[in-house]
Amino acid sequence: MQELNSNIINNNSFSTIEKDSLFIIKIGGNIIDDEVKLSFFLNKFAHIKGKKILVHGGGKLATKLAAQLGVEQQMVEGRRITDAETLKIVTMVYAGYINKNIVAKLQSYSCNAIGLSGADGNTISAHKRPVKNGIDYGFVGDVDTVNTQLLENLLDQHLTVVLAPITQDLNGQLLNTNADTIAQETAKALSFNYNVQLIYSFEKSGVLLNAADDHSVISTINQESYQDLKQKQVIFAGMIPKLDNAFAAIQAGVKRVIIGKAEELDLLISGNSGTSIVHD
Amino acid sequence: MQELNSNIINNNSFSTIEKDSLFIIKIGGNIIDDEVKLSFFLNKFAHIKGKKILVHGGGKLATKLAAQLGVEQQMVEGRRITDAETLKIVTMVYAGYINKNIVAKLQSYSCNAIGLSGADGNTISAHKRPVKNGIDYGFVGDVDTVNTQLLENLLDQHLTVVLAPITQDLNGQLLNTNADTIAQETAKALSFNYNVQLIYSFEKSGVLLNAADDHSVISTINQESYQDLKQKQVIFAGMIPKLDNAFAAIQAGVKRVIIGKAEELDLLISGNSGTSIVHD
Repeated sequence: MQELNSNIINNNSFSTIEKDSLFIIKIGGNIIDDEVKLSFFLNKFAHIKGKKILVHGGGKLATKLAAQLGVEQQMVEGRRITDAETLKIVTMVYAGYINKNIVAKLQSYSCNAIGLSGADGNTISAHKRPVKNGIDYGFVGDVDTVNTQLLENLLDQHLTVVLAPITQDLNGQLLNTNADTIAQETAKALSFNYNVQLIYSFEKSGVLLNAADDHSVISTINQESYQDLKQKQVIFAGMIPKLDNAFAAIQAGVKRVIIGKAEELDLLISGNSGTSIVHD
Repeated sequence: MQELNSNIINNNSFSTIEKDSLFIIKIGGNIIDDEVKLSFFLNKFAHIKGKKILVHGGGKLATKLAAQLGVEQQMVEGRRITDAETLKIVTMVYAGYINKNIVAKLQSYSCNAIGLSGADGNTISAHKRPVKNGIDYGFVGDVDTVNTQLLENLLDQHLTVVLAPITQDLNGQLLNTNADTIAQETAKALSFNYNVQLIYSFEKSGVLLNAADDHSVISTINQESYQDLKQKQVIFAGMIPKLDNAFAAIQAGVKRVIIGKAEELDLLISGNSGTSIVHD
């Protein structure tokens, strides 16, 4: 019996080793706005070896276009209320302008990228968020299913997938979906067949011990230290739902979640920068 | 020797039969503008059996957005001069708004569509059109290469490809490319491995014997009758380059080019409507 257990353990370890590595990287809004920073980031991204997926937002550019077109924007708790005109704008900006420019730039760095919205190949289906507590978010989608088969096929063809945060129900309706959520749902769905590392790259260096000091990065957080940090109120407010989501991803099979500075993408990947969120 | 030749002929016929059928359908601008007509068309398109590719433009919607944003548009011989601001607009409108709405609508008709620009998977690479006769078209691309391998792989996965008329050079520059040209170049490139039928669907019933009478459709034109129709000036002016292009496609291996009414797509495919351009 002891021997049998030992075999099972060995088999499990073996199958873990056998899984391909996959990086799913969310790029934050402040980088997308800045052409020089974006090129710098994309160059680093292009040089990551192996399978990778990039998820982008682009809220600030959408806000700018809405202002130019005189379409008033309403935000509730950081989320955009998406009326029909706003949906048109985010579809144009996210799935069109930003997505295709990122893809073309990656092609120029010899990274064969393919840009997709959730509608393409039914990559991500969603449902319109129901009205709750009197708040109607409009054409905002909560994710139902990620089409892992298509994504795996594209990755197997050495394509790098670039996901725009536009999803669809299956009745012809496009929906605006938070890019962090897209990254997380995709990471969870693909963790069954890959060793997924999910990276949230943005303007900060990671989770900080002292919010005012960008050098006070906590290098690793596990379930136990997370509870401790919350109790000591080192982690508070907006960081809590972010980390809860990260741990939810870990629980669902994602190997590691990394939060850190976009400019240091290579160091985030090598484990020499940012905060790693791990199971234990 | 006679026997050998006969074998070669038989082999050729055999390989022709073995090729999969592929429809490449260009949808004209007047249909894209009209939500009801577009849905009607897409429903018919979705029900075409077998492999198919849809190519769309969307010039009128781009012109409308340019007007809203105060970006002046300049046309030379029906072609848009594409400055940097206009490129941004056509990228948003063609690769974003129109492409993703068509894809979502097709998904609702159980047609698993995937929308691509030429940048995606390096599907279509192009070069910036050189200044000629003093005309600088700006960021307009003339097609160099169609990536048939990717397209064939997607078609083999029962995906329907929806192509937006945005291409790229390989240096990170997006380019605006005529949708008719995209359809023709894709048809030519794929005719090596498929029996390609290229359909230009628009608001007219086909090539007309009498331009004023939409019922006077010429059902078939081959090289010989084309020369005859040109000599009798039944075919003249703008129709000549269109038909020259159609015959160029036929010469390059495309099996049939069909020109006809978008609302009658099913009849165009069954050969019961429109004008067929054939080799002989």
